Amino acid sequence: MLIYLSLPIIKLHGRKETDDRTRAIAERVFASETKEDDIRDEISLFDVADDCPILNQELAQHVTEDDDEEKRSKKSLKKISLFMVHPNLIFNQSPHSKKHLSRTQPLLEDKPTYLEVPHFQRLSITGDYAAGVTMDDFELACTGLYRALTIREKYMRLAFQRFPNTPSQFLCKIEGEQWKPEDQVLPVFTSPPKSGEDPFCTKDFPPNLGYVARMKDGVIYVYKDAASADKHQPLNHPGPDLVTFIDDMNFLIALIAQGPTKSYSHRRLKFLMSKFNVHEMLNEMEEMKELKKNPHRDFYNCRKVDTHIHAAACMNQKHLLRFIKKSYRVDADRVVHVLKGKEMTMKELFASLNLHPYDLTVDSLDVHAGRQTFQRFDKFNAKYNPVGASELRDLFMKTENHISGEYFATIIKEVASDLEDARYQYAEPRLSIYGCNPNEWTKLASWFNKHRVFSPHLKWMIQVPRIYDIFRGRNFVPHFGKMLENIFLPVFQATIDPNSNPELSVFLKHVTAFDSVDDESKHSGHMFSTKSPKPEEWDIVKSPSYSYWIYYMYANIARLNQLRKERGMNTFQFRPHCGEAGAVTHLLACFMTADNISHGLNLKKSPVLQYLYYLAQVPIAMSPLSNNSLFLEYNKNPLQEFHKKGLMVSLSTDDPMQFHYTKEPLMEEYAIAAQVFKLSTCDMCEIARNSVLQSGLSDEEKIHFLGTNYLKDGPEGNDIRKTNLAQIRMAYRYETLCYELNLIREGVMAD
Amino acid sequence: MLIYLSLPIIKLHGRKETDDRTRAIAERVFASETKEDDIRDEISLFDVADDCPILNQELAQHVTEDDDEEKRSKKSLKKISLFMVHPNLIFNQSPHSKKHLSRTQPLLEDKPTYLEVPHFQRLSITGDYAAGVTMDDFELACTGLYRALTIREKYMRLAFQRFPNTPSQFLCKIEGEQWKPEDQVLPVFTSPPKSGEDPFCTKDFPPNLGYVARMKDGVIYVYKDAASADKHQPLNHPGPDLVTFIDDMNFLIALIAQGPTKSYSHRRLKFLMSKFNVHEMLNEMEEMKELKKNPHRDFYNCRKVDTHIHAAACMNQKHLLRFIKKSYRVDADRVVHVLKGKEMTMKELFASLNLHPYDLTVDSLDVHAGRQTFQRFDKFNAKYNPVGASELRDLFMKTENHISGEYFATIIKEVASDLEDARYQYAEPRLSIYGCNPNEWTKLASWFNKHRVFSPHLKWMIQVPRIYDIFRGRNFVPHFGKMLENIFLPVFQATIDPNSNPELSVFLKHVTAFDSVDDESKHSGHMFSTKSPKPEEWDIVKSPSYSYWIYYMYANIARLNQLRKERGMNTFQFRPHCGEAGAVTHLLACFMTADNISHGLNLKKSPVLQYLYYLAQVPIAMSPLSNNSLFLEYNKNPLQEFHKKGLMVSLSTDDPMQFHYTKEPLMEEYAIAAQVFKLSTCDMCEIARNSVLQSGLSDEEKIHFLGTNYLKDGPEGNDIRKTNLAQIRMAYRYETLCYELNLIREGVMAD
Repeated sequence: MLIYLSLPIIKLHGRKETDDRTRAIAERVFASETKEDDIRDEISLFDVADDCPILNQELAQHVTEDDDEEKRSKKSLKKISLFMVHPNLIFNQSPHSKKHLSRTQPLLEDKPTYLEVPHFQRLSITGDYAAGVTMDDFELACTGLYRALTIREKYMRLAFQRFPNTPSQFLCKIEGEQWKPEDQVLPVFTSPPKSGEDPFCTKDFPPNLGYVARMKDGVIYVYKDAASADKHQPLNHPGPDLVTFIDDMNFLIALIAQGPTKSYSHRRLKFLMSKFNVHEMLNEMEEMKELKKNPHRDFYNCRKVDTHIHAAACMNQKHLLRFIKKSYRVDADRVVHVLKGKEMTMKELFASLNLHPYDLTVDSLDVHAGRQTFQRFDKFNAKYNPVGASELRDLFMKTENHISGEYFATIIKEVASDLEDARYQYAEPRLSIYGCNPNEWTKLASWFNKHRVFSPHLKWMIQVPRIYDIFRGRNFVPHFGKMLENIFLPVFQATIDPNSNPELSVFLKHVTAFDSVDDESKHSGHMFSTKSPKPEEWDIVKSPSYSYWIYYMYANIARLNQLRKERGMNTFQFRPHCGEAGAVTHLLACFMTADNISHGLNLKKSPVLQYLYYLAQVPIAMSPLSNNSLFLEYNKNPLQEFHKKGLMVSLSTDDPMQFHYTKEPLMEEYAIAAQVFKLSTCDMCEIARNSVLQSGLSDEEKIHFLGTNYLKDGPEGNDIRKTNLAQIRMAYRYETLCYELNLIREGVMAD
Repeated sequence: MLIYLSLPIIKLHGRKETDDRTRAIAERVFASETKEDDIRDEISLFDVADDCPILNQELAQHVTEDDDEEKRSKKSLKKISLFMVHPNLIFNQSPHSKKHLSRTQPLLEDKPTYLEVPHFQRLSITGDYAAGVTMDDFELACTGLYRALTIREKYMRLAFQRFPNTPSQFLCKIEGEQWKPEDQVLPVFTSPPKSGEDPFCTKDFPPNLGYVARMKDGVIYVYKDAASADKHQPLNHPGPDLVTFIDDMNFLIALIAQGPTKSYSHRRLKFLMSKFNVHEMLNEMEEMKELKKNPHRDFYNCRKVDTHIHAAACMNQKHLLRFIKKSYRVDADRVVHVLKGKEMTMKELFASLNLHPYDLTVDSLDVHAGRQTFQRFDKFNAKYNPVGASELRDLFMKTENHISGEYFATIIKEVASDLEDARYQYAEPRLSIYGCNPNEWTKLASWFNKHRVFSPHLKWMIQVPRIYDIFRGRNFVPHFGKMLENIFLPVFQATIDPNSNPELSVFLKHVTAFDSVDDESKHSGHMFSTKSPKPEEWDIVKSPSYSYWIYYMYANIARLNQLRKERGMNTFQFRPHCGEAGAVTHLLACFMTADNISHGLNLKKSPVLQYLYYLAQVPIAMSPLSNNSLFLEYNKNPLQEFHKKGLMVSLSTDDPMQFHYTKEPLMEEYAIAAQVFKLSTCDMCEIARNSVLQSGLSDEEKIHFLGTNYLKDGPEGNDIRKTNLAQIRMAYRYETLCYELNLIREGVMAD
């Protein structure tokens, strides 16, 4: 069986010479496009005055000087078009297509110039092929993988989460359907406030719908009114069905254990690794050439998002130390704490702890993870307490305390201001909702609004710690269902009637996703099945399993998103911690439910899941420095391996307070990965681009940071002028993914 | 044979309770001692205003508030003494000695309080022992190692370089002599200018001695007058003798290849490794406890010196990029270059290179070492040229060009100003003297004085590239002797008559050492022996061997130091690059001649040399990030291994422009080492302390940064309040070194 594969490549028609005039135009267009960035760009790293007049003057001159030439050369420009070519044809291309791109064609055509992929060396496989397994096994594996992808696609659509176009198109093709771009389902994020707009404005909320939200079997349904609620006649919002979900899950559990699929996936992953190594060997210099020719953009000034960071540890240890000392100097006599009804000033509080902030050091603060924390998540959690004192954690790192979380808000705003100064860095801090009490949301929203904790460089997420056992053990909640209700009901209610809780409605606008967090290595012993007790029946002290948690989080988020989408509000992604430790089934549950995950280390252990995460391009926020202190030594981290194979990985810090040493934790994370794994600039820019795609940045922001077509797959979706990511790399990734998907199609079709 | 060993340990007499009064005094004393540091300390990392009034007020209050109590408690203090104890006794110590130290005793006694070593667990070996080798082999090995140490001691003394007291005392004991502290030979460094003093002042130089300096057989001798010079009757300055040197060298070459010594050294090194691992396991928490109790000093605010950095690459790539852009904005129309007699403005220069600085990025700058440079020193050297253009290197990174090196001076001053802002970081940049021309020194000194390139945070070194073959090939020099003459004669002359070249005399005051640099993996094929041609006879195009180079550098530096010491001037250390690649004999030559070395990677390959470097505590400036790009992958770097065994290692950046990503290259170096090698705070502070000891900082500065007794070995020499290095660690290192030296003594005595 010879498998033919249609691969898209981009070719430039005509135009043999690049003359200086068109070059000048391209420069001018580029300069005007990136003007805003540039001014800050050159000075961001080393703090030159922001309004340097010489700089502005120079810029203005540079932009205008070739203005006349532009007019003269307009007519000499030719059209560029994009079409599909068989990979073998690529080697017969004329040398003209080798021309450098960003310099030649300005924005006078429909297709922007950066679409061109320079000539590069491709690896092509010819001859009969069944991936080294028997034909039967090949077909079996492909059919299984195909079904797995359809399962993920279904659950992503249901919750307004993302499933990339390329696999979606292949699935359509297999089903003999026509794929339409408008079928694409996307999450909705709140755009950044326009200038002059107040991000805390409580006006203009839509009116009360008068609906009733009520929990049934652990999931909140929306009803027209109380009467329909009593009869359980919910409004017609689609949502996941537990029985189907368990069926799908069981299918996947069987699939990841199935011999043929395992060996097929394993072989494909090995192939992907070798293929990338060959690609790198052959094209490394060509990729670098693209980047060198790309004016004015380098790794330092392409956007990167810290896709996984906890708000309570988002400052580094030295920052926290300085903040504590500063607060003491200013606020020593302020009442900051109440102990057994007695008010205490900060001075008294520190005295009661036998401490003087003057003597504090990062050593005595003791919030940094050391060798003692390796494999000890329990010890690690204790590191959240400065000087081992939970009072200080309460005072400095909580939203709820005697000073209404003022210090915590201030620290976060300082971190945000550092990010704004660094200009090209963004972060997605997580704040906790525990589900212990229905008022948590109101309090958190009130903290957010009161201290105006907003920055365009921060996108908020809600983390839900999986600590039901602790709350149930202390009798804070009667059963698991109540926790779910505490977590989700207030959000449903604020969605139905935003004006009933304006502060919460404002806060929700700025929340982009839910996270699920805790030590995954704790084992529950419970197997999630249709026979599992319903959440309202789950009243034992033991926690339900990871999958059980994940399903009910997902089911509620999916239904919530249906309602919010209908109301024109922003939706929430589900982005749990997953695969940091524990069973591989965690990764399976999240393959079904999560838009993207944090960690993913354990994909090492399951070739089928790893291959599925690759095929569906599920983003993974990896934190090798965090892993290094907790679960896995740095040089054993699979980051490099995943990246080479083409999994969509980003870099994140997790907890700068515990893990990082320098003033710029995210840059530290990138620098160390670059050094230890010998990443090229192109690799780093690819990871940075992945981080923007993975993040909850709004469509506007993504267009601004990645280019107009960022939603498209392949080189078409990349604007090298903004991402500094070589088109060769984009083409390689795209063609490789298409090749893998096509193999599966062949396997399924042969069936 | 049972070997008894006397080990020093420190014990606290009497005083069972620590009361608050004495505590307060200790705090007060400490606070006043470290006042100067503290003000900046808390704000250095995050740039709060330098003169924050609240801060000063708070500090003043903190210092004075317990003043009265001090008087009351004076009489209650008891004496602390230091004496020697058999290691076995340690375990019988009373629990009182467990008391915490830095808090108890103020400076009212002769012995400062920080001398105390808290109780810790020691590993003791009992029973007959001959290091696992036969008695004969043991004695043979020890005799050889003993002689090797005496050889190093001899050559160190001859050149006013350092040989630590502890091995020196052991050598004395073996020889049956009495060791006297005043026998210690030390280099002389220029003190930092007092406030108001001008570091460029050309007054007050000593008068002309009227001596004549002339080269004979590659070494410069000083004669009373021309007549004695003609007769070769030099003044009575001791200096190395070539024949003896070659004898010594041949002895060492035989020693490092000798079976018994190899296996003995190998076994001892393995033992040292295991011993440290046990120490760490048993005492890690105790060491940490010391640091946590140490007020106001942590890794961030203990001094660290970048012991190996090249001036031409001392800025990071982003800094250079920004500087080029800034210069262009300001100076586009300035004449900066002359090409074939034609003057060129910066604009014209960039135009001739087809560049516009506006488009430049770190990618197009292309000065960063990537995967392409691994094992390719040649490619690496090309990275010194921005955008591959040597014109830009000439313009921005040279001291000699059409603008008299103004840009280069400015960049260096910016780097220095960053270090001053960071406050706790120092650097020892190398400037080149090639030996191609006798005027090089005058030109370099003129650059230094003209642009006033001075900072208290920089200590200057001279690097001599070993590129005789290139100069000879182009007929720039007639023979190797002329190069040596060009390198050293001007310095001798400026030493004899400082006023003859005041600028050079000023510059030499600020020079602390000579370095010898080039790709060590280039093999010369020549074996240095008494039959080697004399430098004046070396007129072939091929370069002499590394050892030949090193000997003649050393011999001239030794004689120069004799002269300078006599004149009361600062002396120069010899601190060559050594053991980065190439033969292990490089490390042997430097064991004989160098105060300390850079790199030392190849100590991995010779257990005897590694053990000798340990015994003599030869400082090694390691640069794992540089090695990672050139010779050795990061996680294979022996830094951690050497550190564990007790070799005296420091961390350095080598070339931030090529290797580093962040704004603080030295912190990046420490952070990455800490992460990958899981260094504890104590490890990092030990490395930082080593770096200060290794550096050319003056005695005053070392006292300020490390404590009054920094020259003493063991816990006595450590001031934890300044170094944040646990006394337990100091005691462990000291006792371990004494144990090893004592074994050698036993072996020699048994002979």
